[in-house]
Amino acid sequence: MVNFVSRRQFTIEWAHCDPAGIVFNSRFFEFFDWGTWILFEAALGVRPPDLADAFRITGIPLVDASARFLAPARFGDTVELASQVSAFRDSDFDVDHQLSVRGELAVEGRETRIWAARDATDPALVKALSIPDEVIARFQAQ
Amino acid sequence: MVNFVSRRQFTIEWAHCDPAGIVFNSRFFEFFDWGTWILFEAALGVRPPDLADAFRITGIPLVDASARFLAPARFGDTVELASQVSAFRDSDFDVDHQLSVRGELAVEGRETRIWAARDATDPALVKALSIPDEVIARFQAQ
Amino acid sequence: MVNFVSRRQFTIEWAHCDPAGIVFNSRFFEFFDWGTWILFEAALGVRPPDLADAFRITGIPLVDASARFLAPARFGDTVELASQVSAFRDSDFDVDHQLSVRGELAVEGRETRIWAARDATDPALVKALSIPDEVIARFQAQ
Amino acid sequence: MVNFVSRRQFTIEWAHCDPAGIVFNSRFFEFFDWGTWILFEAALGVRPPDLADAFRITGIPLVDASARFLAPARFGDTVELASQVSAFRDSDFDVDHQLSVRGELAVEGRETRIWAARDATDPALVKALSIPDEVIARFQAQ
Repeated sequence: MVNFVSRRQFTIEWAHCDPAGIVFNSRFFEFFDWGTWILFEAALGVRPPDLADAFRITGIPLVDASARFLAPARFGDTVELASQVSAFRDSDFDVDHQLSVRGELAVEGRETRIWAARDATDPALVKALSIPDEVIARFQAQ
Repeated sequence: MVNFVSRRQFTIEWAHCDPAGIVFNSRFFEFFDWGTWILFEAALGVRPPDLADAFRITGIPLVDASARFLAPARFGDTVELASQVSAFRDSDFDVDHQLSVRGELAVEGRETRIWAARDATDPALVKALSIPDEVIARFQAQ
Repeated sequence: MVNFVSRRQFTIEWAHCDPAGIVFNSRFFEFFDWGTWILFEAALGVRPPDLADAFRITGIPLVDASARFLAPARFGDTVELASQVSAFRDSDFDVDHQLSVRGELAVEGRETRIWAARDATDPALVKALSIPDEVIARFQAQ
Repeated sequence: MVNFVSRRQFTIEWAHCDPAGIVFNSRFFEFFDWGTWILFEAALGVRPPDLADAFRITGIPLVDASARFLAPARFGDTVELASQVSAFRDSDFDVDHQLSVRGELAVEGRETRIWAARDATDPALVKALSIPDEVIARFQAQ
């Protein structure tokens, strides 16, 4: 079973780039975050600011992020970001991101996020909840 | 004579927003920079990374920037950025930016930039050059 | 009567700089925001995250920002940011920022902010309140 | 043999934080980059912008980055970033970063970087060089 992939094309801006003339690494983690929201909107049919209310969670906070930088992306490059949930576990999941420049994979990333809600007894705490089956089902490619 | 306007729609991302839940002010200046590059590409038919070579300049560095914040933009909002050169002078020019949220003006900005080249006698220096008439003509609305 | 000035030295980072090798303009607006918080902490003796509660406001949101870029700041430069309230009006105020590189003024900025609270009848609205005299008095140089 | 650790304290700014009121993940990767430059300056006695010339390299580009987020950092928190080379290999190395909030580890990161120079036959290419023994020796704790 394969989860579906959301794809987004955009252009590398001057503000994304560093003195080496290439995208500064932290920007890719912004792109990944954006990719995850786009993916969730596509899969669940809920606008990003409405996600928490729709599923009675506080959000999908990040617990782990990583990236491999295979080739640079430069000012003016048109890039494609492909994002996909690669694994659902009980209360957390992985989102894989692939950023391509002119059809070549340039950056691979992975985010691990939890399905999070406030603790009923202590609202200052956030705890991971089991991800509903209906949510997981929505990510399966049709 | 009115210069033409380039327009771009995009979505406010989580990473653009601050603890008040609204776009942090510095991000608007990123948007303005992006708007200027898009405008120049549209008017001059030259990709942003090729602009300097095409016109034998070092670039169009910013000397002045300002913004008025009339209403907030929030995570998930679709916004429109309209950018236009409002004045060309001998060697500098103003770019006006208007960012609208749901059709209402939310942020107004202005950048003043110079048409800059390396000094022939001292390449470490950048100096303002007269903007070519052909460049100015390309910005006039058809 | 002159208001006091808070000063902060810091180093320009790689991540602050753009492909021209100089600080990208939006970063200066981050520096200004930071300078304002430091100034308010120094003047009022309240940690930034406690400011709103201490004065029963929602915050000091920005309504206007501007900067003049006189000279570049580069990776590794030690800079000094001097921040000062240049004017208090009934419910808003100006903060002037001067960023110097090696003793030379490189960037001048101004922020206009309001003293803001939730509207008593409609908590979704924020309105400007009169700035308390005790607050203004704390900014006067001793 | 243990390599030495550089430590830096700083304050979490409003601009670092997202609508959840905590530092947005990409900012930690900025902090890590900054930590690496500080570490290299401390170990090698060379200012960051002079590193490339001093060692006849083009730089120390990132090929891999990762972070684990154990606890949030919030606006106004004083944090400490401890950075250390955890492994030198022939032409690349790992820098480990630990960010603590009030003495508790909040974020752990690792960057893998290469010791890079232009290819002698094709200056458009960058290739990894063997890291000089004298460089490695300078990182050993005295």
